[in-house]
Amino acid sequence: MIAPSQDSVCVAIDCMGGDAAPRVVFEGIALCAHELGKVALQLCGDPACIEPFFQETREKTRAYPVTLEVIPAEDVIPSDMKPAVAVRSHRNSSLGVAVRSVREHQAHAVLSAGNTGALMALSKVMLGMLEGIDRPAIATFLPTMRGQSLVLDLGANAECSARNLVDFCFLGEALAQIVLGVPSPSVGLLNIGSEETKGNHTVQEAADILKHARILKNYAGFLEGTDICAGTADVVVTDGFTGNVVLKTIEGSIHFVKDRIKGAIRPSAGMWLSALLLRRSMKKIFANLDPRIYNGAVLLGLDALAVKSHGGADDFAFAQALKFTVNVARQNLIGRVKGSLDKLSSLEENTTL
Amino acid sequence: MIAPSQDSVCVAIDCMGGDAAPRVVFEGIALCAHELGKVALQLCGDPACIEPFFQETREKTRAYPVTLEVIPAEDVIPSDMKPAVAVRSHRNSSLGVAVRSVREHQAHAVLSAGNTGALMALSKVMLGMLEGIDRPAIATFLPTMRGQSLVLDLGANAECSARNLVDFCFLGEALAQIVLGVPSPSVGLLNIGSEETKGNHTVQEAADILKHARILKNYAGFLEGTDICAGTADVVVTDGFTGNVVLKTIEGSIHFVKDRIKGAIRPSAGMWLSALLLRRSMKKIFANLDPRIYNGAVLLGLDALAVKSHGGADDFAFAQALKFTVNVARQNLIGRVKGSLDKLSSLEENTTL
Repeated sequence: MIAPSQDSVCVAIDCMGGDAAPRVVFEGIALCAHELGKVALQLCGDPACIEPFFQETREKTRAYPVTLEVIPAEDVIPSDMKPAVAVRSHRNSSLGVAVRSVREHQAHAVLSAGNTGALMALSKVMLGMLEGIDRPAIATFLPTMRGQSLVLDLGANAECSARNLVDFCFLGEALAQIVLGVPSPSVGLLNIGSEETKGNHTVQEAADILKHARILKNYAGFLEGTDICAGTADVVVTDGFTGNVVLKTIEGSIHFVKDRIKGAIRPSAGMWLSALLLRRSMKKIFANLDPRIYNGAVLLGLDALAVKSHGGADDFAFAQALKFTVNVARQNLIGRVKGSLDKLSSLEENTTL
Repeated sequence: MIAPSQDSVCVAIDCMGGDAAPRVVFEGIALCAHELGKVALQLCGDPACIEPFFQETREKTRAYPVTLEVIPAEDVIPSDMKPAVAVRSHRNSSLGVAVRSVREHQAHAVLSAGNTGALMALSKVMLGMLEGIDRPAIATFLPTMRGQSLVLDLGANAECSARNLVDFCFLGEALAQIVLGVPSPSVGLLNIGSEETKGNHTVQEAADILKHARILKNYAGFLEGTDICAGTADVVVTDGFTGNVVLKTIEGSIHFVKDRIKGAIRPSAGMWLSALLLRRSMKKIFANLDPRIYNGAVLLGLDALAVKSHGGADDFAFAQALKFTVNVARQNLIGRVKGSLDKLSSLEENTTL
């Protein structure tokens, strides 16, 4: 892979993935071009389809050090296509072409708002996994009462083994060390109770391994649903089914409360000033909780950087994911995670000796 | 079972279950005694331990038609005891004695804030299941943007088969018909996407059965996490692991937003009146979202009424669970659910013929 530098980062973007592609992709680029620094964006997709957007966006971003380049792709992976089919016959899709660019060292990272399973499968096959890691997990930082916590897996693996969960703990620890700057981040397993007897077999087996193998610097044990937003641990690990439902449940809950508050703040006679001030305060609070701010999740465990944007992202959300990708690539996240893994495995070897 | 009537309802209460038992149980009773109507409460627990609370509560409730009676129980089931152990050797515990009272037709319902697995196992063994139902599910109504939705299973079954999920859909439909007063409530399966290919094997198999067997009046297909608070469907069905995590995640999210708002509303110079009004509005909004209001979940699928209170319930929350139990028992919920099941099975038989 090209060594990322402060100077220039290249991101291959799947322009055809997501509910409102390719429009949202290009509008997102235009929205954040002034914040990206020196970047090259490879726009992968059907040239006929993206051409008008491309021209418009090039006009809008002319003032910034953003290089745009179209990489033609034959077809598109629909959101309901099975990952195996995508791998077998859709390597020339917009998503496949973007992944290939990273594989061929033409880009530092791939970003897609498309089919999550296909992104995972194509990345796994074409980019490979970090040594010793079996499956990638989708990991993202969420705001909590104590700051932010890394939550994974958010949907890459609808079914997980205990071993997968243990790997996710380990990968999450490494990523949290780097991003949060905490030497020993606390890592917990999401469960339905903090007692040892609680939960399903998978989570109990994973807890057994973590307790006995002492893989983590700071194992926090079982966490419950309330612990996520409370920020009890720096890293919250769960299977992709639970994680995905949890992520969307948090979004839904915050939207629900916002809606209730909005409904309650109606200017009444003599109260219009209060209502105005109230609205202003609420707008500020909810702006910080807007899930679009946290759009952009790393497919953790791959031997390269792949970032997933929410499929329903609007231009603002897609811009957040793009900024996140550029930032993470610029920090050479994968190289640093690999370094941590290497250091830890040599430490383990020495300890064993 | 004794036929419940408008006149008198009897609830057997496990006084030793829950984090702050038995204090919270008795304070909860005192708090809502004036709202219960004519009820008899069987207080199951260690007489020496509950006696002082009992006397005090009897004094406080003297003015209301509430009859209190102590039913002595030898021991207590700890929160971390495995259900199988509870069934084997703890039938004379406060929980076991309360369940037995329902079994022996001395009470219409059992209410406990104790060990969920033990309540489920003891109830299953001692009270039996509704015909054709394999396992009970914990079901509760949650507030949503459209009113309220029934969510199940909330933790009774950490592992579920597709057949279990199908049963929960059916049971949930029956309960929602009665409580929401909707003839054809919409019922959906919680998943990580609405597309047919999404999710784990269990949820896909359940969806296949539901689509082909046409068991439900109004099958809503797959739901995502955002759909819960949105109130997309009247009934949301999931396994007990996901359901429990989701329930606690909603609680945690609402608490998080509340905390953010509280922190933002600080009276500043010249703004104290607005801050005061703001605080008052917020208090009212969050009072309606307080999870304690919705405390009290039915163990759906049993051949009798068993209600679970949150283990961490305070007096207010326990009072809500008690009022819920009395109300549901007074409405003869189990009898009506059985009626619906019978009607449906005879309808199915006729259709087959």
